[in-house]
Amino acid sequence: MTPPDPQRLSLNTATVKQQWTLAQAIDGCARHGVRGISPWRDKLAAMGLQKAVSAIKANDLSVTGLCRGGFFTAKDWLDDNRRAIEEAHALEADCLVLVVGGLPQGSKDLGHARERVQECISNILPEARAAGVPLAIEPLHPMQAADRACVNTLEQALDMCDALGEGVGVAVDVYHVWWDPKLEEQIRRAGRKRILGYHICDWLVPTRDLAFDRGMMGDGVIDLPLIRSWIESAGYTGFHEVEIFSEHDWWRRDADEVMRAMKERYLRAS
Amino acid sequence: MTPPDPQRLSLNTATVKQQWTLAQAIDGCARHGVRGISPWRDKLAAMGLQKAVSAIKANDLSVTGLCRGGFFTAKDWLDDNRRAIEEAHALEADCLVLVVGGLPQGSKDLGHARERVQECISNILPEARAAGVPLAIEPLHPMQAADRACVNTLEQALDMCDALGEGVGVAVDVYHVWWDPKLEEQIRRAGRKRILGYHICDWLVPTRDLAFDRGMMGDGVIDLPLIRSWIESAGYTGFHEVEIFSEHDWWRRDADEVMRAMKERYLRAS
Repeated sequence: MTPPDPQRLSLNTATVKQQWTLAQAIDGCARHGVRGISPWRDKLAAMGLQKAVSAIKANDLSVTGLCRGGFFTAKDWLDDNRRAIEEAHALEADCLVLVVGGLPQGSKDLGHARERVQECISNILPEARAAGVPLAIEPLHPMQAADRACVNTLEQALDMCDALGEGVGVAVDVYHVWWDPKLEEQIRRAGRKRILGYHICDWLVPTRDLAFDRGMMGDGVIDLPLIRSWIESAGYTGFHEVEIFSEHDWWRRDADEVMRAMKERYLRAS
Repeated sequence: MTPPDPQRLSLNTATVKQQWTLAQAIDGCARHGVRGISPWRDKLAAMGLQKAVSAIKANDLSVTGLCRGGFFTAKDWLDDNRRAIEEAHALEADCLVLVVGGLPQGSKDLGHARERVQECISNILPEARAAGVPLAIEPLHPMQAADRACVNTLEQALDMCDALGEGVGVAVDVYHVWWDPKLEEQIRRAGRKRILGYHICDWLVPTRDLAFDRGMMGDGVIDLPLIRSWIESAGYTGFHEVEIFSEHDWWRRDADEVMRAMKERYLRAS
């Protein structure tokens, strides 16, 4: 297997969300030789879109994704997703990541929630295509089906892609899909065309929280080199984005230490 | 849809594990008119097998399952599963529930762990068949893949059943499978022959713990009547077993109160 390529490492800004503004994260990536960045929209709004675009260009970073569109359960989902598409366009992002939302308040109708997700994506897809912004459906871990995303397997996401056509694909985040008995098969099915992003971190044992207890690569049980080999065999040549929500550990550390650990672990354990 | 039938309600003793011994749970079922019971083996050992068999017969209860066999990652898995089969036979249990175990200590090889599970089941299956004890593979929620069970979807469990042949089926626990986009399809596939147990509770939002924060039926987001309709359409006519691990709530209440709530919620929200 080929070793990981440091030129393809990307920082998802959630990894240092407690420590750095977006301006600091852009500067940090440049300083640490990290070539990709994937900003979250709250940080982007705080910095201002034009300033962010300029700083990212000035540092010659690639925007490997914009987090996030989706949440079709929200009242203002249409306007919000339109704005997200415009922002992703301005940033020349590789994709807009869609965290699709879970069950609407008070509902237990998962089937309907899923149909609605597909309808909403089909609604925003023409604008995304026109803007040249690929939409990346991110299947989230089944433990987040109720509150964050009712798309929970790669197979389900790819079925949606097939129904929706061009301009939509998937973001494969190992944290959400590592357990899936059909992972290899569905990564192969996705192929180069549908894989729009690849996110890495690790699954800790024990995991103390359903959302904010992700591990740094190498600290958990995910066979990252194996999954990377599947992703690469499928033809994916994009960035590998490190996204770690870690209330108990990495969010409490100095951000430069996080960057150094991320680079070291990327080479050693991914 | 037919209403829930109180004659088919069963108590999984984990629901009152902090409050009652097995003797108390048997007595409690009889007192509250609950016709089924599914004991855990630690409680069974504490009471003594023969005493338990006598008390269960004296109260005319059905043993809807014995929890648990499996954990093929343990050193003494073979002897332990043999004992479990003998106990299930003595109790005339509808099935022996297999929680298959996760990754072996220090391993990240999920594929191998899964192959090993199938080998181990095939190893104990002749004895189980001879004893007339059906083995019920229980797919566990993907969030427990590393530490409790590497069988995580009904589809995966049924693929194993197909490979293993007669004498093995599945325990469908709504907590573990409610999120699965293929649930209806796979329940239909399982059919009467493969569905050996049906466990109910609810998924709370938010969920505060990965193992011990299950809800009472009606307190969460699972559409229990819908899933029951699928189970019944598939031909299942067995008991509906209430299994609630609840460190923050139900384990802290008076057990008779739990029994009353369970009966009421079974009729109203299952």
